[in-house]
Amino acid sequence: MNFSVTILGCGAATPTLLRNSTAQLINTHDKLFLIDCGEGTQLQLRKHKVRFQRINHIFISHLHGDHYLGLMGLMSSMHLLGRKSKLHLYGPPALKDILEVNMKHSGTSMSFPLEFHPTQFGEKQTMYEDATLSIASFPLQHRIPCTGFLITEKLRDRKIIKDFITEHDISLREILKLKKGEDVTRENGEVLLTDAVTILPQEPKSYAFCSDTKFDLSLKKYINGVTMLYHEATFADDMKERAEYTFHSTARQAAKVALEVGAEKLVLGHFSSRYPKTEGLLEEAREVFANTVAAWDGLVLNVPQRVKVEK
Amino acid sequence: MNFSVTILGCGAATPTLLRNSTAQLINTHDKLFLIDCGEGTQLQLRKHKVRFQRINHIFISHLHGDHYLGLMGLMSSMHLLGRKSKLHLYGPPALKDILEVNMKHSGTSMSFPLEFHPTQFGEKQTMYEDATLSIASFPLQHRIPCTGFLITEKLRDRKIIKDFITEHDISLREILKLKKGEDVTRENGEVLLTDAVTILPQEPKSYAFCSDTKFDLSLKKYINGVTMLYHEATFADDMKERAEYTFHSTARQAAKVALEVGAEKLVLGHFSSRYPKTEGLLEEAREVFANTVAAWDGLVLNVPQRVKVEK
Repeated sequence: MNFSVTILGCGAATPTLLRNSTAQLINTHDKLFLIDCGEGTQLQLRKHKVRFQRINHIFISHLHGDHYLGLMGLMSSMHLLGRKSKLHLYGPPALKDILEVNMKHSGTSMSFPLEFHPTQFGEKQTMYEDATLSIASFPLQHRIPCTGFLITEKLRDRKIIKDFITEHDISLREILKLKKGEDVTRENGEVLLTDAVTILPQEPKSYAFCSDTKFDLSLKKYINGVTMLYHEATFADDMKERAEYTFHSTARQAAKVALEVGAEKLVLGHFSSRYPKTEGLLEEAREVFANTVAAWDGLVLNVPQRVKVEK
Repeated sequence: MNFSVTILGCGAATPTLLRNSTAQLINTHDKLFLIDCGEGTQLQLRKHKVRFQRINHIFISHLHGDHYLGLMGLMSSMHLLGRKSKLHLYGPPALKDILEVNMKHSGTSMSFPLEFHPTQFGEKQTMYEDATLSIASFPLQHRIPCTGFLITEKLRDRKIIKDFITEHDISLREILKLKKGEDVTRENGEVLLTDAVTILPQEPKSYAFCSDTKFDLSLKKYINGVTMLYHEATFADDMKERAEYTFHSTARQAAKVALEVGAEKLVLGHFSSRYPKTEGLLEEAREVFANTVAAWDGLVLNVPQRVKVEK
């Protein structure tokens, strides 16, 4: 199944012509999730030909403008274009107040139901769950309350090898048991071993979004073993004092977190506009964690399968 | 002196890749005024290489999202880029509440002083005045309280013909009187006629911004004789029932207003996204008012000198 991340904006603080404010579209198992919604996100969605009425769940990390100022406009467009299906919003409790004061004064009553799910800042919290995946928020260390988000695929059923079905005349009931990893003993004493007739599903993949946060290795307790990690890298390491003061991270620090949590791949983002080019940031991160890429607006990343190391 | 209008966005309701939400930059006598500030305006300013810290006065017509949702982001960028000079905001009283709730929850205290000037909806009101121009708000008829804005140059002094200064040894005190249109009688009985040694200044120009509004010929009492009129033309005339229902205007209606108020030039804008091309709207307006142009994002219009008709 697909599990991709489209970077809609990876700039810090002020949007520029090079980088929009933070927003990411997660397309997993053909469901669309939006994480953060900086100003201009609706145009970025249009630019990348995303039918934004298909987005039913929007997650907001925190209430700095570059992470949410596009939300009211996106919702307004959803409304004006006649949306009917429910929109779920996940974010800091005060986000609800902000949206309500806007709607009140614009005299707008949305054409669709809105369900608001407040995030907590103290602990990891499952915000969304379905048959194939779950999404949790977890605390980040920023100047104002802020959470990251972790999207985790569920372990899928084993896959039955089709040739065996006809060869052994396996019934639907038997297939369901075998896919769950159970052996089947037939009335005639014949045993169908799940290990023989099924193959293991792919290891579940996961994606963690960590923006904005100061350097914090204790993130491990929330996102240990994550497959792909997006971590902010607002500054280069020669500005780590400024990073600490502003509760942001450097590229090298992002790499240290990736190493600590055992990620397969690291994506750097939330770049200060003082870095029109990201080669330097990428280089310092790769010294610590080789499998690193630097985000750019429009980049589509497939969450990779973890490379198995023979032991 | 220059008096130009840059269209930063002329789309209605939902921004598209073709047209941004409403915003206009007025550059008059080298002062910059921003009227309306839809989502993405700060990027439009960057795109058109406007140094937005030079903008000290922002006018907001009403609180529909497509007219103000870019304001918080623009102010936030002004703050993050270290602005110190005062910013004057003119708009509906509730705009202050909206900005305050955003600033409160983002923990932002702006780096610059902010002075808020509430608009009234019942009558025309001078909002700004300096030596060269004045800006007034006036009521428009929309679904929520809404005002237009009228920028009017002041009558400048007469211009003295330089050759006369040396020829008649005219003193500074005499020059000042002559420029004001007064004749000067010298001690020796010699009379300097202002009509002889000065030329009349150009007729003051004016610009009216009317978006959003239903068709309303009574606008004449606020903007009679305006030089250049920007009037919304959300729909073509075959949708005038929808225009009336939504408190918008058609292109033909905009032209009727231009004719009624005796404008020199009409600019159509605030186009519904159902019109990717504006030829049809332009054509129906020109049948009523010939000197009409259709706005597009990036268009720079010089407010024209009124063409004198010999009588």
